[in-house]
Amino acid sequence: MLAASRAHQVFEVQARDPDSRARAGILRTRHGDVPTPAFAPVATQGAVKALSPDELTRLGAALLMANAYHLQMRPGADVVAELGGLHEMSGWSGPLMTDSGGYQVFSLQERRTLDPDGVTFRSHVDGAVHRFTPESVVELQQTLGADLIMPLDVCSAYPVSHEQAAADAEMTRRWAERAQEAHTRTDQVLYGIVQGSVYPDIRGRSAEETASLGFRAYAVGGVSVGEPKPDMLAAIDASVPHLPDDAPRHLLGVGHPEDIVEAVARGMDTFDCVAPTRWARNAGAMTMAGRLNLRNSEHSRDRGPVDAGCDCYACRNFSRGAIRHLVMAHEILGLQLLTIHNVHFVIDLTRRLRSAILEGSFGACRAELMSEFGSGTAC
Amino acid sequence: MLAASRAHQVFEVQARDPDSRARAGILRTRHGDVPTPAFAPVATQGAVKALSPDELTRLGAALLMANAYHLQMRPGADVVAELGGLHEMSGWSGPLMTDSGGYQVFSLQERRTLDPDGVTFRSHVDGAVHRFTPESVVELQQTLGADLIMPLDVCSAYPVSHEQAAADAEMTRRWAERAQEAHTRTDQVLYGIVQGSVYPDIRGRSAEETASLGFRAYAVGGVSVGEPKPDMLAAIDASVPHLPDDAPRHLLGVGHPEDIVEAVARGMDTFDCVAPTRWARNAGAMTMAGRLNLRNSEHSRDRGPVDAGCDCYACRNFSRGAIRHLVMAHEILGLQLLTIHNVHFVIDLTRRLRSAILEGSFGACRAELMSEFGSGTAC
Repeated sequence: MLAASRAHQVFEVQARDPDSRARAGILRTRHGDVPTPAFAPVATQGAVKALSPDELTRLGAALLMANAYHLQMRPGADVVAELGGLHEMSGWSGPLMTDSGGYQVFSLQERRTLDPDGVTFRSHVDGAVHRFTPESVVELQQTLGADLIMPLDVCSAYPVSHEQAAADAEMTRRWAERAQEAHTRTDQVLYGIVQGSVYPDIRGRSAEETASLGFRAYAVGGVSVGEPKPDMLAAIDASVPHLPDDAPRHLLGVGHPEDIVEAVARGMDTFDCVAPTRWARNAGAMTMAGRLNLRNSEHSRDRGPVDAGCDCYACRNFSRGAIRHLVMAHEILGLQLLTIHNVHFVIDLTRRLRSAILEGSFGACRAELMSEFGSGTAC
Repeated sequence: MLAASRAHQVFEVQARDPDSRARAGILRTRHGDVPTPAFAPVATQGAVKALSPDELTRLGAALLMANAYHLQMRPGADVVAELGGLHEMSGWSGPLMTDSGGYQVFSLQERRTLDPDGVTFRSHVDGAVHRFTPESVVELQQTLGADLIMPLDVCSAYPVSHEQAAADAEMTRRWAERAQEAHTRTDQVLYGIVQGSVYPDIRGRSAEETASLGFRAYAVGGVSVGEPKPDMLAAIDASVPHLPDDAPRHLLGVGHPEDIVEAVARGMDTFDCVAPTRWARNAGAMTMAGRLNLRNSEHSRDRGPVDAGCDCYACRNFSRGAIRHLVMAHEILGLQLLTIHNVHFVIDLTRRLRSAILEGSFGACRAELMSEFGSGTAC
């Protein structure tokens, strides 16, 4: 009863698509509401690369995703706390989520050792030895002070054997329980994370067992790590039916436009991904017709906008030729503009999906978007 | 008569300080008015480093300074023209000035050869051989389309002999005449540039002879190239009395706070300088107490703003500790915030000077500012 009433406070479903699992809702935090579906730009070290919080507000960002591992490595949670906590340090007063950094630690590969109690690793910044346990990672995120936090999980590599994936999911579940025990800040929401790689049976069991622990919010992790897209969608399909309907669902590390559309159709509410900001720094622009490389000389004398019909600041004020010049001349403004465009593109996509769900036209919207994406390249 | 009536259109003096040559005015361009004294952030390649035109507007920037040499090297004036001209390419719809690039070409040293007709040099971008003449540089700037343009001049190195400085000033004057002949766009204002290094007699003659050519606006060049500050101020003092009172006066390449105050007192109206943006990219913040290095570890846990009392976006929303973290973590936002702060600092300084002149309190304002700067370090 307690878990259910708490979950009710965190998330409210406002509308559902009758033909899929898509829903529109409101994720409530003490720093404001997040209308869902929603995309969270990634602020790994407390800043979204090349965007000020002011600009993010103008872009309509409602949620940011920072990273506890990165912030512990630099500047350190104690420093963040002395600077008033993550909200004050980052200059972002809206809803804030921290990922545990489990994914980052497990990506260190040769530099980490996993044991049943936690993981020991060397910092990517200075090589110093650190240790994360389920308890220490909760403590770390309680110190940072985000509104929504993630437990330490075991993110299976891809490919992985069925046996190993099952062991990783089981360890994730045990760690989730320990995280729950350690979590004392009632003003923060701790998520339960589903693992299980591409194996639907493990995904289903992981979702069921995690849900039985009674979290107020859930995340699907271990996707978009190299597996084929149909496997990713199947992993979501195998997880969602076991998660409580009145709790929000976050899809970790996914932000490619067509993935967002299909994951929303499968019942996911929020997303985070470095793609929009990382592509921008590599001169890549997201468009309905696919990814555009602004370094390409064909754009040099093009007076048209990056994306026809886009009403972002970059598209309203700069031509493809102008942005290509800025990129080729190593002007920071070039990547600022592409970052603005890409983040606007993904946020605008989630806004369209939300409107369609609220208006009862999600099916048509989904079909139209997927057909437009299909006619493009690898956006 | 014609020259005088034209000059009247370009600049209007609104108030004068009775005890110095300081004046407040309005510099009129077809893209808007510039209330003076004013600082022009430098947009060398058509973009102010790390600032969008939108942000510059929020900061109160009224004039930008781009560089014809840099834009000709990359992307080329023909490309700028195809992209709609410099205003459209840069996304800046306000008043715009281009420097000729004479200073940049002469800085190439081993890579350039000067002759009475012009200068031949190798591009800093790709080593290709180019030639600038007084006529070609006017033509180049007519193609770029800025509101205010500079003729090709000969910027004496420092130190330089009296004989060489006199020869450079004489060449500058002859080139100014040729530039005037070549200049046909009546919607652009061509400046006459005073040279003469640190020699007051040459400065006086250069100013007098340039003024006799009847330009609508004047610039003092060849300062802030390594000479002692008293010599720079003496060079301004020797130039200004010979320039028409109703024409605007630009001081090329000067933007350190105390230099602006003293140059305004000596009758200069507008300024451009890379210092605010360049310092920012080197973690340097301008404050009334001098230059602050945000890399310094003493700032790591400092919850106070970069500059107490400053109301810029960075100081209102970020602590010194937060900005130090961003700088140390190589976050672009760190240099964006410091750029915002520094450009705000200099623009705000010119706003204070203008208000003081309009209110009749320039003497007190100047004394107060110079005393505050004096108590700091090398800002």
